[in-house]
Amino acid sequence: MPSYRAPVEDTLFLLNDVLGFHRYDNLPGFAEASPDVVEAVLTEGAKLADTVLAPVNRAGDLEGCTRGADGSVATPKGFKAAYDAYAQGGWMGLSVPEELGGQGLPHTLNTAMQEFVSGANLALGMYPGLTQGAIAALLVHGSEEQKQAYIPKMVEGTWTGTMNLTEPHCGTDLGLLKTKAVPNGDGSYSLTGTKIFISAGEHDLSENIVHLVIARIEGAPAGTKGISLFVVPKFLVNADGSLGARNGVTCGSLEHKMGIHGNSTCVMNYDGATGWLVGEANRGLNAMFVMMNEARLAVGVQGLGQSEVAYQNAVAYAKDRLQGRALTGAASPDKAADPIIVHPDVRRTLMGIRAFNEGARALVLWTALQSDIVHRSQDAKQRQAADDHMGLMTPVVKGVLTDRGFANAVEAQQMFGGHGYVEEWGMSQFVRDARIAMIYEGANGIQAMDLIGRKLPRDGGRAMMAFLGEVQTFIKDHDEAEAMKPFVQPLQAAVNDLQAATMWFMQNALTKPDNAGAGATDYMHLLGLTALGYMWARIAKVAQEKAGDARMEAKLVTGRFYMERILPETTLRLARIKTGADSTMALAAEAF
Amino acid sequence: MPSYRAPVEDTLFLLNDVLGFHRYDNLPGFAEASPDVVEAVLTEGAKLADTVLAPVNRAGDLEGCTRGADGSVATPKGFKAAYDAYAQGGWMGLSVPEELGGQGLPHTLNTAMQEFVSGANLALGMYPGLTQGAIAALLVHGSEEQKQAYIPKMVEGTWTGTMNLTEPHCGTDLGLLKTKAVPNGDGSYSLTGTKIFISAGEHDLSENIVHLVIARIEGAPAGTKGISLFVVPKFLVNADGSLGARNGVTCGSLEHKMGIHGNSTCVMNYDGATGWLVGEANRGLNAMFVMMNEARLAVGVQGLGQSEVAYQNAVAYAKDRLQGRALTGAASPDKAADPIIVHPDVRRTLMGIRAFNEGARALVLWTALQSDIVHRSQDAKQRQAADDHMGLMTPVVKGVLTDRGFANAVEAQQMFGGHGYVEEWGMSQFVRDARIAMIYEGANGIQAMDLIGRKLPRDGGRAMMAFLGEVQTFIKDHDEAEAMKPFVQPLQAAVNDLQAATMWFMQNALTKPDNAGAGATDYMHLLGLTALGYMWARIAKVAQEKAGDARMEAKLVTGRFYMERILPETTLRLARIKTGADSTMALAAEAF
Repeated sequence: MPSYRAPVEDTLFLLNDVLGFHRYDNLPGFAEASPDVVEAVLTEGAKLADTVLAPVNRAGDLEGCTRGADGSVATPKGFKAAYDAYAQGGWMGLSVPEELGGQGLPHTLNTAMQEFVSGANLALGMYPGLTQGAIAALLVHGSEEQKQAYIPKMVEGTWTGTMNLTEPHCGTDLGLLKTKAVPNGDGSYSLTGTKIFISAGEHDLSENIVHLVIARIEGAPAGTKGISLFVVPKFLVNADGSLGARNGVTCGSLEHKMGIHGNSTCVMNYDGATGWLVGEANRGLNAMFVMMNEARLAVGVQGLGQSEVAYQNAVAYAKDRLQGRALTGAASPDKAADPIIVHPDVRRTLMGIRAFNEGARALVLWTALQSDIVHRSQDAKQRQAADDHMGLMTPVVKGVLTDRGFANAVEAQQMFGGHGYVEEWGMSQFVRDARIAMIYEGANGIQAMDLIGRKLPRDGGRAMMAFLGEVQTFIKDHDEAEAMKPFVQPLQAAVNDLQAATMWFMQNALTKPDNAGAGATDYMHLLGLTALGYMWARIAKVAQEKAGDARMEAKLVTGRFYMERILPETTLRLARIKTGADSTMALAAEAF
Repeated sequence: MPSYRAPVEDTLFLLNDVLGFHRYDNLPGFAEASPDVVEAVLTEGAKLADTVLAPVNRAGDLEGCTRGADGSVATPKGFKAAYDAYAQGGWMGLSVPEELGGQGLPHTLNTAMQEFVSGANLALGMYPGLTQGAIAALLVHGSEEQKQAYIPKMVEGTWTGTMNLTEPHCGTDLGLLKTKAVPNGDGSYSLTGTKIFISAGEHDLSENIVHLVIARIEGAPAGTKGISLFVVPKFLVNADGSLGARNGVTCGSLEHKMGIHGNSTCVMNYDGATGWLVGEANRGLNAMFVMMNEARLAVGVQGLGQSEVAYQNAVAYAKDRLQGRALTGAASPDKAADPIIVHPDVRRTLMGIRAFNEGARALVLWTALQSDIVHRSQDAKQRQAADDHMGLMTPVVKGVLTDRGFANAVEAQQMFGGHGYVEEWGMSQFVRDARIAMIYEGANGIQAMDLIGRKLPRDGGRAMMAFLGEVQTFIKDHDEAEAMKPFVQPLQAAVNDLQAATMWFMQNALTKPDNAGAGATDYMHLLGLTALGYMWARIAKVAQEKAGDARMEAKLVTGRFYMERILPETTLRLARIKTGADSTMALAAEAF
């Protein structure tokens, strides 16, 4: 029943007209990504998402994954064919270097495609998503031999990847991990332990599964300083690249989850499994962070994808469902009732989701562009600035886009009344699937702590100062133009709130760290609101230059809605931050 | 795994110390409800909720209801025994007049019990909940004969009740309904049509099911002015009260829902079923509104109940789960890590839910007291004031408590990280179950429209003026006391926002009704925030008088958290309202 149409047009508008994608043609891979190529790639990707991945989404929810007595896992009907189409389309290696089998195109295009895939079928998209994360970690930290052994096969999609961090007693606090690695004397290690919540840990989509696993080498220091990263293939790989013996890693059980039923979430038992160190011993967390940052951005994109598909279906329903009359008089007097899209409270809901989605898409693509600069620019200063942006925005994209993405899915479901609560309409699945994105890859509270405790203070606050400087410059450049005032003035108010909050932390959190912790989530959202406000101001400027186009007029209305109705939340966030930690922390734990 | 402990102590505190329950001893039934009786009733009710209803909650979710080929419906294992315990405890008729088999106690106590039941087992609680709604409608609109025929059996619990409104093409807009009633010539009618989303429509808990059904008598006017209410028993009732022939009403299928799996949500087919008019012909909507208002308050209480049980389990997990260290240094240096309740962002979440729950409980009990006054007072002026309060607060209790109740369940789930997403921990069920309360008995957007379009303007805004007057008087009486300033000053700010919003509508919505529609949801929340703020100020005053008691100290901290962190949201709500409908309504429907 639900449907999906990947937002190609909006993505192209943002890349070409707002973000100036083609100004970066000096970077490797960008010259190849000419306007025609970009349009062709996204159009083809959209076709895959709309016609291959989306149609098996609901079946995946209903059927889920099943584990056989031998520990094998079957994915839902239709998943294998859809996965194969994805792999054969070359999507896995879209931005992987050509020498490792990829296409070397900008990661920005890959990110756009991630939104399409996440909107079409979140559970299915996680299999290639985790594979791309594993490729990213091996690209940065793997030895040349490891890269050659694993990456081309993963790019082909004949092998997939996973990341194994969590253990039953150890989620956020990885220092507690117990999985043990014992040197075998031949350069390999023998890994023993239990990992939980391992997405795509076992399945029938690929010939081999390349597990990246963190473990503690026997005798290593306690805590996070004794963690190493290993590559542990499901089947050992012979020297000629063919598959060898089955390794000692098995799926012990599948989790029964609220959503993403089509993805196999496994308890993985490592029972003397053979693995090889990736990067340096005891520096595994560093290596894992590469994978985690990529994954965090991708998870933020999942929030956007689910928000978008939920929005599209709510719009279709609101245009179709006849109920009541417009407050201003019958809009469809020839019908028994008006379509509910005439009702202001329905509009408010739809406009709110739309305004978020379009702004969030801009932020995602802008951030993805910075990622390309970090990895491809020759200019150290440009690289540093891009890396600062990435660091600052990674927790925002992850935390804010998934919090709001889930909330938007709930709002979209609400449009359907009782039909939204009934599974056959598919809205419940969007809500249940979107929920996971707030949790995995670091629960959103952890994102907020990462932002305020690590990303914000780093290098004397350089990243935040650069962001504020860029936004202030934009405001100064446009605050004279009458038409831009409805955008620039609210943006200035938001920036003032953001600056005041930042200042408040500098004055109050250094001596009392609980003041930072108690305001962290509000600060993350305050930054996210402001970043989206900046995106909308940039979009509005372009839309005004192209006035007369109906699509651009719609952009201006939607942008104004964002500025009037959503952005003012910054004031509430600031007010909360400034109350500090006193009432938050005053109760003794026993009083709860 | 999850557990529940009904909040007896807090309920008693609110009734006895804050709301002055025993000042109403002049009302029928109140003298009987002496302090000892109230405590005994609530303690007994809590025992039932904690030890009988809650233990079968998870099994109800896992197993759900099943429909046999003959149209019969089996409830989950354990539900029948739990339901019987509820019925045999006399809970169904707690506040029903004694002459109809009830206990005649105040409805306020029944409402407190509704919270306990909703927190323990929402799906199970709906069976008696709908029965109580049906009893309420028959009490007001049924003939003497109908009351005698149906109510005592329902009070016993041997028969249950339902309400049948929705049809496939007709939810909110009941004027569209098609179910037809044809007079049989003997005073009865023959009903034909299809009703959907009928909670407790068919099941194995009771011997008979008393359906209250709205339908259109052949030849009646179109729209809402041609709707009549009928009573249609599953089994016809003989003159001696024994069960007669099976009536022509059957369950065609069960809906597959996101949650409340233990409740049978039925498509009901009326195929020439025999029914009798309740109240006057073509005045069915009026009669139904009695039932709907009772039901709306009860649904608001469901939101609170789910918020409370989710909170309790999140607290238990936060005290138990070891992860990371307090920002201020190790709190449990002897353990591998600190319990996560030390982390400010965890505290912020728990305090937010707690502050909402305790304030919302006060609002619910206060409103229930007004309901008792409406039904039992001899003083017309007192009755009118109470009725005004009920009218104003019904959409707030329904809309705000379920919106926030669901959001709180999500926040509580978030405390569990990945474990929250896995069904075995039970947090997913709380989220999925709580979700329905935002939808049924009038989706929350409808509550907001009801508030702003009907309840607010009625009698020249008398209800709102009375509420504002009461709050202002409280503020004036306490704004000199230093200790009360942290409560009274934020409350005054909220009242100012509420007044400004009300004024804005008066000036801008009469000529442009879309301005009301676009701000309705924000206004409902603005009123809800302020009402809870007033409750907290009253609680704080009592707590200050009892200073020295640890429980009262906790109240003061929690109240301060509400005032500092939650109440300031009124400013955001006002800002949104004042933007009006322009950007909300500007896009043509085709532009979506």
